[in-house]
Amino acid sequence: MNKIFFTPGPSALYFTAEQHIKNALKNNVASISHRSKQYISIHEETVNALKELLDLPEGYSIGFTSSATEVWERISENLIDQTSYHFVNGSFSEKFYQAAHDLGKNAILNKAAYGSNHDLKNVEIPEEVELIGLAQNETSTGAMLPVADIEGLRAKYPEKLLAIDSVSSLPVTRYDFSKLDTLYFSVQKCFGLPSGLGVWIYNERCLETARRLKEVGKYHETYNSLLSIDKFAQKNQTSCTPNVMNIYLLGKVVQDMLSKGIDQIRQESAYKSALIYNLFENHERLNAFVTEKKFRSTTIGVAEVQGGAEPLMSALADKGLLVGSGYSQFKGKHIRIANFPTHSKEQMELLVDTINTIEF
Amino acid sequence: MNKIFFTPGPSALYFTAEQHIKNALKNNVASISHRSKQYISIHEETVNALKELLDLPEGYSIGFTSSATEVWERISENLIDQTSYHFVNGSFSEKFYQAAHDLGKNAILNKAAYGSNHDLKNVEIPEEVELIGLAQNETSTGAMLPVADIEGLRAKYPEKLLAIDSVSSLPVTRYDFSKLDTLYFSVQKCFGLPSGLGVWIYNERCLETARRLKEVGKYHETYNSLLSIDKFAQKNQTSCTPNVMNIYLLGKVVQDMLSKGIDQIRQESAYKSALIYNLFENHERLNAFVTEKKFRSTTIGVAEVQGGAEPLMSALADKGLLVGSGYSQFKGKHIRIANFPTHSKEQMELLVDTINTIEF
Repeated sequence: MNKIFFTPGPSALYFTAEQHIKNALKNNVASISHRSKQYISIHEETVNALKELLDLPEGYSIGFTSSATEVWERISENLIDQTSYHFVNGSFSEKFYQAAHDLGKNAILNKAAYGSNHDLKNVEIPEEVELIGLAQNETSTGAMLPVADIEGLRAKYPEKLLAIDSVSSLPVTRYDFSKLDTLYFSVQKCFGLPSGLGVWIYNERCLETARRLKEVGKYHETYNSLLSIDKFAQKNQTSCTPNVMNIYLLGKVVQDMLSKGIDQIRQESAYKSALIYNLFENHERLNAFVTEKKFRSTTIGVAEVQGGAEPLMSALADKGLLVGSGYSQFKGKHIRIANFPTHSKEQMELLVDTINTIEF
Repeated sequence: MNKIFFTPGPSALYFTAEQHIKNALKNNVASISHRSKQYISIHEETVNALKELLDLPEGYSIGFTSSATEVWERISENLIDQTSYHFVNGSFSEKFYQAAHDLGKNAILNKAAYGSNHDLKNVEIPEEVELIGLAQNETSTGAMLPVADIEGLRAKYPEKLLAIDSVSSLPVTRYDFSKLDTLYFSVQKCFGLPSGLGVWIYNERCLETARRLKEVGKYHETYNSLLSIDKFAQKNQTSCTPNVMNIYLLGKVVQDMLSKGIDQIRQESAYKSALIYNLFENHERLNAFVTEKKFRSTTIGVAEVQGGAEPLMSALADKGLLVGSGYSQFKGKHIRIANFPTHSKEQMELLVDTINTIEF
């Protein structure tokens, strides 16, 4: 049976990915040296396509890691001397807090109820905080922060570094990157690629911070510390043998997205998202987990399922429609529906219609 | 033109890899959750196949990282309190030394001339050394340490942890794992897979060391610190979203190797290696870089090319035969020929015959 993965990541491959994988094999992409001109050209092509898709301003660079999880570690090791501040409202924002805490930082936790979000306008962040971390899109709960709220926070605390988790929302969320310092995502979410690659965007202020910490001996120097990542990134290379296939595939998929048009992708995302929340509003056994509309994620729709999620998930799986389970403590209670660029309007309509008509 | 990659890694894909990639796509391996039963079963299958291929004893576990480079970092962070000792005879063994040094360890460097190797029988290692690192196969120079020499070192210093870089020699080199503590490799060498996955084998003594360092606050606690890797490995999982495709592919290729038989693979490797060194002995413009026969690598043959390597490499590339360039300071002076399990006897004969007959 043909399966459609509406799981929140790993998820369905971007609809062109399989063809790109076959082309990559034909062109020996998996066999070329990561120090060869051919690789450098692939790397450059991917970075340039991403910069165009995201409208990245001057002074912002792109590095590759193995995962977004690695970025939590590298930010904690390279951009925080003592104190960081973490807006937490779900498992992933909490993991960043935990990473900084485990590395001995004074990581300040500001926790909102899962399924809700922070009122960024009415928050006081202590003077000593060097870096603020937040999840623009909390994959575990489907709660999203409006970009305007984030920009307001930045305006209020312009001296602190602002680090954004956009793992499951880029490129659907539109940012003015000049109003943030660093942002990271994984390719197995909205970009529809196999897992095993993280993308780390950082600006000159991050590099300055890393250099300053290095000077005073507070820098954790490794092959993938920020300055090392950046040194290689400036040459369109990486500090170790990277996931060459995925870097190639990312470039190809981003070029496909550019051909389609990012506005079109965002419009379709909004339409499909409306279908999902409309379903949650009207289905007698589903309730949107995020009650406040302004905080509802476009790319991850999460619903509580009255009577438990398992029968619905099974009934859908029997029809080849795979939705995500609730995360961690919400397993068995929630479903999570990914609304990524590869999911067509027709697929989302099919999913919604099926949920509306099946018995569970 | 069909190309054959004799490059030392990334290299030719294992001859079954492409078919496994296609099967993986058909079976949605890239879309499944890394917390699903399906993933756990893939992970377990891969680990079990590897344990069988390597004849891994009880008390030895397998973890996954993004690269062997990452393992240098994790060993330095988790298994060394103060002092490590590094046998260096090439760029990669030196990189491990550098990683430990950069992380503030008292990393003792014992450097042999590149192209030669250490006389492990006549070495005195200071009392305070906690961990000894060496490259069984130095990919940059083609110098290999006999396993018997390594076992002798272990017998002399049984209290110190012994860490082996076997990045480009496993599974061709045969180890008695009970005579070492930790070993790591990358999948883009002998296993013929796309890059982006490191494999870290460690024993109970490593775990005890990590636990002891943790107790005394000398442990660098991250998602991929050894105890975290191990905690997830015991559940056939990883601490972050891993390179699921490669973990799947590794299991399939290892099963293919098991079907072929590891003895057969080792015999063929020895035969092809003899072809390479015979070429170096007899060709008037090629000289084996490693002059002492006992130190010559089976899997990476390195030759100095009189008059420079470029014309030979170009002439071979024109015929679709790609050999590696010299590493770092040897670029333009050396060629490196990978002799990995995917390279057939016929392919190696073709390469040797071609080098013997072309003008350059």
